Amino acid sequence: MSLFADLLSNVFDNRYRFGLARQDGRKTEDLTAALVGATGEVTGQAVARQIIDRYAGWDDDEKLGFFRHLATDLDLDPAAVRAALDAYAAHSDKASYRAFAAAAEPPRQELVRRLNQVPGATRQLVRMRADLLRLGRGDDALMALDLDFRHLFASWFNRGFLVLRPISWESPAHILEKIIAYEAVHAIHSWDDLRRRLQPEDRRCFAFFHPAMPDEPLIFVEVALTKGVPGSVQGLLAEARDILSAEQANTAVFYSISNCQAGLAGISFGNSLIKQVAADLSSALPGLKTFVTLSPIPGFARWLDAQPVTVDTSDDLKLRQLAAYYLTRAKRPNGLPDDPVARFHLGNGAQVHALHAQADTAPNGLKQSHGVMVNYLYDLSRVSQNHEKFAAAGEIATASEVRSLASAAETALKEITS
Amino acid sequence: MSLFADLLSNVFDNRYRFGLARQDGRKTEDLTAALVGATGEVTGQAVARQIIDRYAGWDDDEKLGFFRHLATDLDLDPAAVRAALDAYAAHSDKASYRAFAAAAEPPRQELVRRLNQVPGATRQLVRMRADLLRLGRGDDALMALDLDFRHLFASWFNRGFLVLRPISWESPAHILEKIIAYEAVHAIHSWDDLRRRLQPEDRRCFAFFHPAMPDEPLIFVEVALTKGVPGSVQGLLAEARDILSAEQANTAVFYSISNCQAGLAGISFGNSLIKQVAADLSSALPGLKTFVTLSPIPGFARWLDAQPVTVDTSDDLKLRQLAAYYLTRAKRPNGLPDDPVARFHLGNGAQVHALHAQADTAPNGLKQSHGVMVNYLYDLSRVSQNHEKFAAAGEIATASEVRSLASAAETALKEITS
Amino acid sequence: MSLFADLLSNVFDNRYRFGLARQDGRKTEDLTAALVGATGEVTGQAVARQIIDRYAGWDDDEKLGFFRHLATDLDLDPAAVRAALDAYAAHSDKASYRAFAAAAEPPRQELVRRLNQVPGATRQLVRMRADLLRLGRGDDALMALDLDFRHLFASWFNRGFLVLRPISWESPAHILEKIIAYEAVHAIHSWDDLRRRLQPEDRRCFAFFHPAMPDEPLIFVEVALTKGVPGSVQGLLAEARDILSAEQANTAVFYSISNCQAGLAGISFGNSLIKQVAADLSSALPGLKTFVTLSPIPGFARWLDAQPVTVDTSDDLKLRQLAAYYLTRAKRPNGLPDDPVARFHLGNGAQVHALHAQADTAPNGLKQSHGVMVNYLYDLSRVSQNHEKFAAAGEIATASEVRSLASAAETALKEITS
Amino acid sequence: MSLFADLLSNVFDNRYRFGLARQDGRKTEDLTAALVGATGEVTGQAVARQIIDRYAGWDDDEKLGFFRHLATDLDLDPAAVRAALDAYAAHSDKASYRAFAAAAEPPRQELVRRLNQVPGATRQLVRMRADLLRLGRGDDALMALDLDFRHLFASWFNRGFLVLRPISWESPAHILEKIIAYEAVHAIHSWDDLRRRLQPEDRRCFAFFHPAMPDEPLIFVEVALTKGVPGSVQGLLAEARDILSAEQANTAVFYSISNCQAGLAGISFGNSLIKQVAADLSSALPGLKTFVTLSPIPGFARWLDAQPVTVDTSDDLKLRQLAAYYLTRAKRPNGLPDDPVARFHLGNGAQVHALHAQADTAPNGLKQSHGVMVNYLYDLSRVSQNHEKFAAAGEIATASEVRSLASAAETALKEITS
Repeated sequence: MSLFADLLSNVFDNRYRFGLARQDGRKTEDLTAALVGATGEVTGQAVARQIIDRYAGWDDDEKLGFFRHLATDLDLDPAAVRAALDAYAAHSDKASYRAFAAAAEPPRQELVRRLNQVPGATRQLVRMRADLLRLGRGDDALMALDLDFRHLFASWFNRGFLVLRPISWESPAHILEKIIAYEAVHAIHSWDDLRRRLQPEDRRCFAFFHPAMPDEPLIFVEVALTKGVPGSVQGLLAEARDILSAEQANTAVFYSISNCQAGLAGISFGNSLIKQVAADLSSALPGLKTFVTLSPIPGFARWLDAQPVTVDTSDDLKLRQLAAYYLTRAKRPNGLPDDPVARFHLGNGAQVHALHAQADTAPNGLKQSHGVMVNYLYDLSRVSQNHEKFAAAGEIATASEVRSLASAAETALKEITS
Repeated sequence: MSLFADLLSNVFDNRYRFGLARQDGRKTEDLTAALVGATGEVTGQAVARQIIDRYAGWDDDEKLGFFRHLATDLDLDPAAVRAALDAYAAHSDKASYRAFAAAAEPPRQELVRRLNQVPGATRQLVRMRADLLRLGRGDDALMALDLDFRHLFASWFNRGFLVLRPISWESPAHILEKIIAYEAVHAIHSWDDLRRRLQPEDRRCFAFFHPAMPDEPLIFVEVALTKGVPGSVQGLLAEARDILSAEQANTAVFYSISNCQAGLAGISFGNSLIKQVAADLSSALPGLKTFVTLSPIPGFARWLDAQPVTVDTSDDLKLRQLAAYYLTRAKRPNGLPDDPVARFHLGNGAQVHALHAQADTAPNGLKQSHGVMVNYLYDLSRVSQNHEKFAAAGEIATASEVRSLASAAETALKEITS
Repeated sequence: MSLFADLLSNVFDNRYRFGLARQDGRKTEDLTAALVGATGEVTGQAVARQIIDRYAGWDDDEKLGFFRHLATDLDLDPAAVRAALDAYAAHSDKASYRAFAAAAEPPRQELVRRLNQVPGATRQLVRMRADLLRLGRGDDALMALDLDFRHLFASWFNRGFLVLRPISWESPAHILEKIIAYEAVHAIHSWDDLRRRLQPEDRRCFAFFHPAMPDEPLIFVEVALTKGVPGSVQGLLAEARDILSAEQANTAVFYSISNCQAGLAGISFGNSLIKQVAADLSSALPGLKTFVTLSPIPGFARWLDAQPVTVDTSDDLKLRQLAAYYLTRAKRPNGLPDDPVARFHLGNGAQVHALHAQADTAPNGLKQSHGVMVNYLYDLSRVSQNHEKFAAAGEIATASEVRSLASAAETALKEITS
Repeated sequence: MSLFADLLSNVFDNRYRFGLARQDGRKTEDLTAALVGATGEVTGQAVARQIIDRYAGWDDDEKLGFFRHLATDLDLDPAAVRAALDAYAAHSDKASYRAFAAAAEPPRQELVRRLNQVPGATRQLVRMRADLLRLGRGDDALMALDLDFRHLFASWFNRGFLVLRPISWESPAHILEKIIAYEAVHAIHSWDDLRRRLQPEDRRCFAFFHPAMPDEPLIFVEVALTKGVPGSVQGLLAEARDILSAEQANTAVFYSISNCQAGLAGISFGNSLIKQVAADLSSALPGLKTFVTLSPIPGFARWLDAQPVTVDTSDDLKLRQLAAYYLTRAKRPNGLPDDPVARFHLGNGAQVHALHAQADTAPNGLKQSHGVMVNYLYDLSRVSQNHEKFAAAGEIATASEVRSLASAAETALKEITS
């Protein structure tokens, strides 16, 4: 990893070599106008650095003012678009196409691209969007502005530009402290706890990075190598467990996947990450035959509360039946599964493989799903087919045992409600 | 292996690890439709790899067929744009903005972005555009398609994503052979010739790279460290010259700048490269006070032939006067300098600093400019100002000596033509 | 740093690629005989790996048995040496010289060299010597064996083979945990404490590594950049202190130097480390003008107890006077300073620069020196000269203020004892 | 810059950062005395640098003078050895052992170790020994001095300190030019020729490096991946040959092994190199089942000339028979094979596998062996056993077909000579 940082460090050095940009006293509105209008990079980069540096010093109100300026003053001009469209419809030549393309894109998109000319600016822009999402929630104009950020970021953080790096106990501390900070599923309590997740032979971790932000993981997945499919996350993470040699393992368990960048919300990396890691592990350790998750069911308890049943939460079988039913039958109005984690993995082409009671006995696990967890199975030879059926017909790939559990729950629920 | 290649080699390994994609027999048109329509990355990446692999095997006719398909079938739909625009004008909300943005971008743009999800695809797409420029010249529909490529590439090859790397005799051979191949100004005749341009203490070379194409320089500049401003490129490159210690040099001469990627035509890196290199050298070697080019004047002889004068090409002073006049006075209809190299450097904010006769006595130098060459001066404290005046008013920064030369030529030309 | 581990990781991979050596059932004494006698590397390496692997599994008794075997069975043969010496004295030719050199070196030296042919063995041999020093203390035969280890290690860990690497918050965690473990002067209490010593701009750390043990620092020094010479280590390390920009600092303070490898006892790296770090910092930050330590005086309190005086330890001036006297006047029978830290720095050519009371108020600091600390000054232009005078005549370079303090103490001590 | 050079570049930077050492005007003899006597590194390193720098500027006469000084003035003192030996025989304690060890080693050994304290000195010392071997040939005193160099180098260039690195077309040019220069078996004629040996998928090259000389390969081997065992080196290296995919190959052919450092003569790396490369290739490409050389027989023609036979050198079978006989039966007085390449490979535990006529039709191949070449087979499961038999009893592992060829020649030779 520090190879990585090392390589591109010159990008960031540049920024600090020059220190902060000299501020020339113009209003920010004048700077954005100058930057969008700049004919070349010559003065553009200096203006861009002024804006980037100013932004870094602003409070929320000032940031909101800046966003409103972008949303309003650098918005699309429908009349200009209409005129360019008419010209293009009439001529269909290169010049009219170019003119239309220019008119159909709000100037704020070009502004963001030009801000990104400053070495090191990419991470600042990602933070800027995190601010925008936080401050602009519910505001239609700001959410339209966010669409422009998202459109650019989807292009910049294209899968083809991302780099997969293993994260290990030999990774740089400043990366590792971010792993601790960003772990969103099963909190890492200390450096010793982190070491237990990285150093043993039967533990792995992988992250996607973008070359322009080499110090910032975008998303990471924690993997346990096991014999057989595990049914308890506390068992998996127990301090006193026996460590397996990597060669003896037959199963890779993705037990935690965490997004790291609020500013990249809506740009999906998880599917690529899981498949890439599965392919890499499979090639490095041919003994690995099964790739599964050990996943929470965050929507289960809430859904269950809304059902007209009273459940004995100490009845493990009943809980597994209801969870199987919930995952495979409970849908949102748009036909997708109610549970968000299920939506993610099933959308990736995974199968609902097995359910476990008393699998997450941490307070949050008990609260959100009465301790029930699920394995989603990634069978690389079937994910495409599963995905197609799910995408086209909402069909959920389900192991037969899980189907039986769901059917039993269905019967019980029907009896109750009838 | 260089740090650089090493770092990102996994990107390309992935591609080769899987070998060529399995082709599923669908028509290419069906594949592009499937890719643009794909709801997720799951099947998208497999489809994208099929298209990339097919393209690599095509001849020019097949490639042209593919480009026509993109230009026609995946073109903008003006009626849809109009409808979306009306809806947006009416509602101005996030949903209508999103719908407009989708309609206003031709599907082929999203196609190219999705092709780029394949690890290693970026370089293939750059080659694709090189093919497009070669095969589509003069065809309005294909040139409109090219605008979409260019729009995406300008975003992907944004200055903020580029990495400046020194090129030295310690660089990997597979990079160096590209330097030999791409040198466009003063040909490198052999590996020994290359070594003479890289290894001595008073020679430097720098290139921009993109992390997704770590083996491919995008543009490079060759630099000579000298005492004083040189007036002959043959002198500068003489095999038997004395080598200066870097600490003794007071001048850095950019004597050759070469673009490497035909597929990145129109995406400008040169200005950034020169300024970054000047800043880096200035910081590493504080003794360097002057940053100049030693540049060809490719349009001079042709322009001179068109003048109503007969020039004694053995009259060095006369040649310098006329070249000074040509560079500072001869304009294209749009008001920009006639000479393309002058347009580049003056647009960057450089100054016409000095003219030298018998400065390039190679056949091509004699043919294109009767051996005259020019130094453009990059005074980092003045480039912004120079650029502004040039961009706003077409004003050309000129050293007083050069102004005098031009004036002498003006007088002579007037006499002749009057 | 991970560059470093990365580079040479193949050395260690080899070891693990093959797993443990197949043990062939021979007695260890037979293996050592075979290894010393082996004519080539062919079978030697396999035998060496067996010995290395066996050793790793032994308890202290078995290790001691092994050491006794080396000390006894692979000892010098004085009769053979005498015969070879006679032959050499008689012939003085190449063959007799070779024979003498072979006879004059005990076979156990060649054994250790051949053990080192196993990739990764160096660190095992360093641990082996640590065991030997621990288990063999006071045993003449084992201490003679240790001289052979030490002779080889002095050659292998020659300054020319060591690599200086900065240690930072971007260093790999598995290196950093060793820094925490090995810090011998001012304990590092947690990863947060470590971060405070590495991450701020005004803190630096450097270590020597050997290429054959890239994961193991040999010695490291912690540096604080300050304005002026500090007089309190608690002040220096305070959590709430203001952080200085590196450019504003004029002084580099070496406040902690720790050896890491018990098995390299007696192989001195500290002098080279300090001078190399001083030279590197001086070149990177030209504003640094003063290089000093902030050092403990571990022998002071014990010495003071033995003096016929009663000291009011709340009298700061008195304490400083006595400490100055102790450092510059109290000698061991061999004429060297009584204080071990003083012996180290004065032997390096440093000067006793200043004394501070209440400078280390931690329990250990109060106990060993009543809280007094000392700055040793490394004036690179004077260290050679200081060193020569110290080595030749025991003369201690002393700042005039310190001399005055010592004189005052001398007077007081004389009064008391007369 | 390669990882390797990059990593350790700081070692060499140090040297150049300080420039040449300040010379203090003392005689070299005084400097060596001072260095050997120096009590610490403080002044030692400065003295060492003076000597290193002086040496670099000397002509052969001055170098010879220096060597004579080392051989004479810093030689062993037999009387002192004898006294120390007596003391040790009498006391057998640590102090007397230490004193003996010091006396039994000539001071020039310690001198060379101290010269090596200068960063970057190792390569200078290797060059120094190359000079010594060249200038001191036949001089007993200088050859005794060489034994001291060799003793130290054997310890420093221990297998455990060497690093195996692949050499490819992506390696740094300054390393590759050394491959061109050092290839001793089948000359590399140009960079294009080199590329043909490195870039195709079915060609590999590996070298050993020492961390203190990262720019200098110590020994390298060129490998061709083939289907079946090849019988012609011109066929193997043909420009127009078909390139095999690495996965299709079943045989790895070591067709050239070159030592690079004259100053490391007598320190054997070849055996380790071949076995390490065979193990690495075998693990990376499981399809490789056979590891052979395609080797010259440099002693064959000369030996044949000395036989009382006249051979029709156009009779391929006859030549193969005689070569088989030569390799397996012709011995030197010490019982080892007459052919030096045979000695090397058979000593490593290889088997004489097959003989090919018209296998090297280059002028040198025809001259030294009438075009005959031999494959030595490295069967990793048998090399130890082969080596033991060869070392113990001079028994040569021979394929049955080769045995038959040799027998046929034996019969023919007997008939002729009887």
